[in-house]
Amino acid sequence: MSLTLGELAVRFGCELHGDPDVRVDSVAALSNAHPGSVTFLANPRHRPRLADTRASAVVLDASAVADCPVAALVSVNPHATFARIAGLLHPRPVAPPGIHASAVVSPDARIDPEAHIGAFVSIGPRAVIGPRAVIGPHCVVEDDVEIAEDVHLVARVTVCHNVKIGARTLVHPGAVIGSDGFGFAREGERWLKVPQVGSVVIGADVEIGANTTIDRGAIGDTVLAEGVKLDNHIQIGHNCVIGAHTAMAAHVGVSGSVTIGQRCMLAGKVGVVGHLTICDDVTVTGYTMVSHSIRQPGVYSGGIPAEDARTWRRLVGRLKRLDSFVRRVAALERATGTRSTVHQGEDDD
Amino acid sequence: MSLTLGELAVRFGCELHGDPDVRVDSVAALSNAHPGSVTFLANPRHRPRLADTRASAVVLDASAVADCPVAALVSVNPHATFARIAGLLHPRPVAPPGIHASAVVSPDARIDPEAHIGAFVSIGPRAVIGPRAVIGPHCVVEDDVEIAEDVHLVARVTVCHNVKIGARTLVHPGAVIGSDGFGFAREGERWLKVPQVGSVVIGADVEIGANTTIDRGAIGDTVLAEGVKLDNHIQIGHNCVIGAHTAMAAHVGVSGSVTIGQRCMLAGKVGVVGHLTICDDVTVTGYTMVSHSIRQPGVYSGGIPAEDARTWRRLVGRLKRLDSFVRRVAALERATGTRSTVHQGEDDD
Amino acid sequence: MSLTLGELAVRFGCELHGDPDVRVDSVAALSNAHPGSVTFLANPRHRPRLADTRASAVVLDASAVADCPVAALVSVNPHATFARIAGLLHPRPVAPPGIHASAVVSPDARIDPEAHIGAFVSIGPRAVIGPRAVIGPHCVVEDDVEIAEDVHLVARVTVCHNVKIGARTLVHPGAVIGSDGFGFAREGERWLKVPQVGSVVIGADVEIGANTTIDRGAIGDTVLAEGVKLDNHIQIGHNCVIGAHTAMAAHVGVSGSVTIGQRCMLAGKVGVVGHLTICDDVTVTGYTMVSHSIRQPGVYSGGIPAEDARTWRRLVGRLKRLDSFVRRVAALERATGTRSTVHQGEDDD
Repeated sequence: MSLTLGELAVRFGCELHGDPDVRVDSVAALSNAHPGSVTFLANPRHRPRLADTRASAVVLDASAVADCPVAALVSVNPHATFARIAGLLHPRPVAPPGIHASAVVSPDARIDPEAHIGAFVSIGPRAVIGPRAVIGPHCVVEDDVEIAEDVHLVARVTVCHNVKIGARTLVHPGAVIGSDGFGFAREGERWLKVPQVGSVVIGADVEIGANTTIDRGAIGDTVLAEGVKLDNHIQIGHNCVIGAHTAMAAHVGVSGSVTIGQRCMLAGKVGVVGHLTICDDVTVTGYTMVSHSIRQPGVYSGGIPAEDARTWRRLVGRLKRLDSFVRRVAALERATGTRSTVHQGEDDD
Repeated sequence: MSLTLGELAVRFGCELHGDPDVRVDSVAALSNAHPGSVTFLANPRHRPRLADTRASAVVLDASAVADCPVAALVSVNPHATFARIAGLLHPRPVAPPGIHASAVVSPDARIDPEAHIGAFVSIGPRAVIGPRAVIGPHCVVEDDVEIAEDVHLVARVTVCHNVKIGARTLVHPGAVIGSDGFGFAREGERWLKVPQVGSVVIGADVEIGANTTIDRGAIGDTVLAEGVKLDNHIQIGHNCVIGAHTAMAAHVGVSGSVTIGQRCMLAGKVGVVGHLTICDDVTVTGYTMVSHSIRQPGVYSGGIPAEDARTWRRLVGRLKRLDSFVRRVAALERATGTRSTVHQGEDDD
Repeated sequence: MSLTLGELAVRFGCELHGDPDVRVDSVAALSNAHPGSVTFLANPRHRPRLADTRASAVVLDASAVADCPVAALVSVNPHATFARIAGLLHPRPVAPPGIHASAVVSPDARIDPEAHIGAFVSIGPRAVIGPRAVIGPHCVVEDDVEIAEDVHLVARVTVCHNVKIGARTLVHPGAVIGSDGFGFAREGERWLKVPQVGSVVIGADVEIGANTTIDRGAIGDTVLAEGVKLDNHIQIGHNCVIGAHTAMAAHVGVSGSVTIGQRCMLAGKVGVVGHLTICDDVTVTGYTMVSHSIRQPGVYSGGIPAEDARTWRRLVGRLKRLDSFVRRVAALERATGTRSTVHQGEDDD
C-alpha cells in the first residue's frame, strides 16, 4: 500500500508542510526511519531527534513544524493520527469467510456466513458467531457463547460456556475467558469448591492480551465495559466490574469482586485486593498493592525504586529497626524537654 | 433442576425455618437475589443486608435466624452448605463417554471406556486415562501420563510425559503440567541446560487454575499433595513439595526446591525464594517476598499499602535517607548524654 | 542407556577416582541417590551430605575428592559436567521426521524433510521450518515465520506472523511469540490501537518458558540475542532488546522499549519500567522494580523480606509517619544546637 502525503493530509485532516506528491508506504520510528516512511513526534522530549530523521514525513503538532527538516503532517493529536496512518499502510490481512475443513462446529451453533472459522477450532452447541468475526486457529468456543460482529480471536483463545463478547473486541493468543473463579468454602482442613455459576460479559472495542485470564462470576457476571484494554498475563477475578476505557499493563492482578471505574490506568504488576472499589480516573503506578478502596481520582503509588544491593540491605536493616529509632527520639525529647504538643501520644511507645 | 426447601433441609441436614414446599431452582447473591433462589450469609458483617433480600431462602447459622425475613436453612457452616446446594442446582454438564472422532490417540494408550476424550485431543503412547475422566478439547497428554478417575481437564491443558494426576483433580484451560524446570549450569558466559529428568505427581482433589504452570523435577518429582488449590498464573518451580490443602492465589511464584506445609494460604503475588521450607498452617498476605524459611505457624507479611503518589514519593525519599537520620539521632544522643545502654553499638554508624 | 564410569571419564575429560568398570544408568540428587546413579556436588555447603550418598559416583571438583566415599569424577565445573552426563543418560526421545496426518500445512510453507510436524499443528503460508526442527502437537505457526534447524517447540506454542527463531532454540508449552505489543494512542477518553507492525527475532540457543509471552515490535523488532534463557510467565514488551546469555526467572515483566545487556540475571518478579537501559553483567534480585536505567555492572535490589504480620503492620505504620519523625529530629537539633553543617537544608521541612 502506497499513498501520497497529499492523500494522507486530506484523509486525516492534517495541514501539510511539504510536497503533496511524495509517496510513502510504511511507518517507522523517528530515529531509524527510512525514505518512503512516515514517523511521528508526540513527546516534546524527543524533538531534538527531529533534525536527523530520514523519514519522508513526520506527523507532529503545530509547535514542532519549524524544527521539522522534512515534510510535516500537522495534527492536534499526532499519536492518534499516526496510529490511523499505520493502520492504513499496514492493514491486517483479511481472513476469508467460511469454516475451515478441520474445524469441529456443533450443528446447533449459529455461524454468520461472513465469519471466518480457522483450523482446529471447536465450537459448542448454541454458540453464536457474528458477521465478519474471525475465530483464529485452535480457538475453543464452548456452549452458548455469543460473539458479536468483527470480533477477532487471534489464535488459541479459550472462551468458556455462556460468555458474551462485544463487537470489534480483539483477543490475543492464550487468553482464557470464563474459567472458574477461585471460590472455596472451608470445611475442616479441606476446601470445598463453590460452583461458579456466573459468566463473563465483555463490551465492544475491548482488547485482551496474550495469556490473560478473566474468571467467570461466582454468582452473576464478571464485566469488562467497552474500550477496556488489558495487556498480557493479567488476572481478573470473579465478579469484577471494570469500567469503560480502563487500561491495565502486564501482570496486573485484580482479586474477586473488585469494582474499578472508567478511564483508570493500572501499571505493570499492580495488585488489587478483593472486594474494593476504585473510582473513575485513577492511575496506579507500577508494583503498587491497592489494599483499600480509592475514592478520589488521582495518582497512587507503592513501589520502591531499585538500589544497589549493599545500600538496599542496609536500608532494609534500618527500616526493620525503625521502632527503636523512634523510641530513641522520644527519649531525647523527654530528656531535653523539646517535645511539642503535636507529637503527644504519637509514636513513642 | 428444581427442589423444595424441605428436600434441601433433609439432604444437607439443615434446620428449616419456613415453608418446606417452596421450590428453588438457582443460587444468587444476598443483595441481588430473586424469588426462586437460595442465597447464604456467612460473614456477619453482611447481616444488615439480610433485611432486603428477595431470595426464597437463606443458608445461615443459628445466630442469624431471627434477622431473616424469608425462609432460613440453618447450618453450622453456611458457606459449605451453600456450595453443596449450588452444585446440586447447577450441575456441570456430563460429558458423554467416548473418544471424539477428531482426537489422535496412540494405540498404546489405555483409555477407560467411561472416559470422555474431546475434540482435537492428542494422547501419547502408554498414557492411561481413568474411569469417567474428562479430557476436554485441545488437551495434550504426552507419553506415559497417568490420569486417575474423575479427573477433569477443562480444555487446552498440556500434561507432559510421565506426569501423574490424582482422582477428581480439576485443571483449567491453559495450564501446563510438567514443563521443564529452569535449570542451567554456567559455563563461561553461556548457560548449559541441565536435563530435567524428574516428573510431577499431583494428588487427589487438587484444582489448578488457568494458565498456571507446574515444572517437572530436575531429579525426582515436583509434588502437589491432595486438596491443594491453585489459582491462575501461578508458577511452581521444579522439585517443590506442596502440602495437602494448601491454597495459593493468582500470580504466586514458588521457586525451585521449596517445601510448603499443609493448610497454608499464600495470597496474590506472593513469591517464595528457592530451597526454603515453610511449615504447616502459615498464611502469607499479598505481595510478600518470602526470603527465609518459616518455621512457626502464623501470618506473615511484606506488602505496603498504596498512598497517593506525592506522599509516596516523599516517603520513599525519606526512606532512602534513613541512614543519615539515624546518624543524626546518634549525634543528638551523644551531645545530650541521653543515650541509654540499650542502644550501645547499634545503628549509629 | 548404561555406561561405565571409565567411559564417562574419557568422554567428559574427568579424572576418575574409582573402578572404571562400574556401570551407571541414571542421574540422582546427592541425598537420595541409589546405586547405579551419578550425582554431583557443586555447592561447597552441601559437602557434608557426601558422606551418606548411595550414588555409584559423584561429579565434584578436586577439593572434594578426599571426602567422597564412592567413585569420584573430578571436573573443574562439576555442574556443567553433570548436565552433560544427564543429557547422555536421559536423552530426549527423537521425534521422527515427517508431517502428522492431522496437521494443516499451507502448500506455500517450506518444511525440511528432516523436520517433525506433530498432531494438530497449523502452519501458514510461506513459513519455513528448518532441518530437524520439532514442531510439537498443537503449535500454531503463522505466515512467513522462519524456524531454523534443531528448534524445538514442545507443544501448543504460538508463533505469530513474520517471527524468526534461531537454531536449537527450545520453547515450552503455552508460550506466545509475536503477539501485538500494548500500544494505544489516547483520543478523548478512548484508546486508539497503534498497529504493531514490527516482529520478533530470536537468536540461537535461546530457551523460552511455559506461558511466557514476547510481544512483537510496534515498529522495528523485539530482539532476544543468542543464549537468552527465560523462565515461565515472563512478559517481554514490544521493541525490547535482550542481550546474549541474559537469564530471567518466572514472572519477570519487561515493559516496552527496554534494552538489557549481556549476561544479566533478573530474579523472580522483577519488573523493568519502559524505555530504560540496563548495561551488561547486572544482577537484579527478586521483587525489584527497576525504574531508572542501570549503567554500572553489579547487584541491585528492592525487595523487602517477610516479617510476621503484627511486626510488619507496626513497621508500615512507622514508615508512613517517617515525615513527622524527621521533623522531630530537626526540632531536637535546633533546640540543642547539635545540628552539624552536613545536614543544612536537608530533610527538615
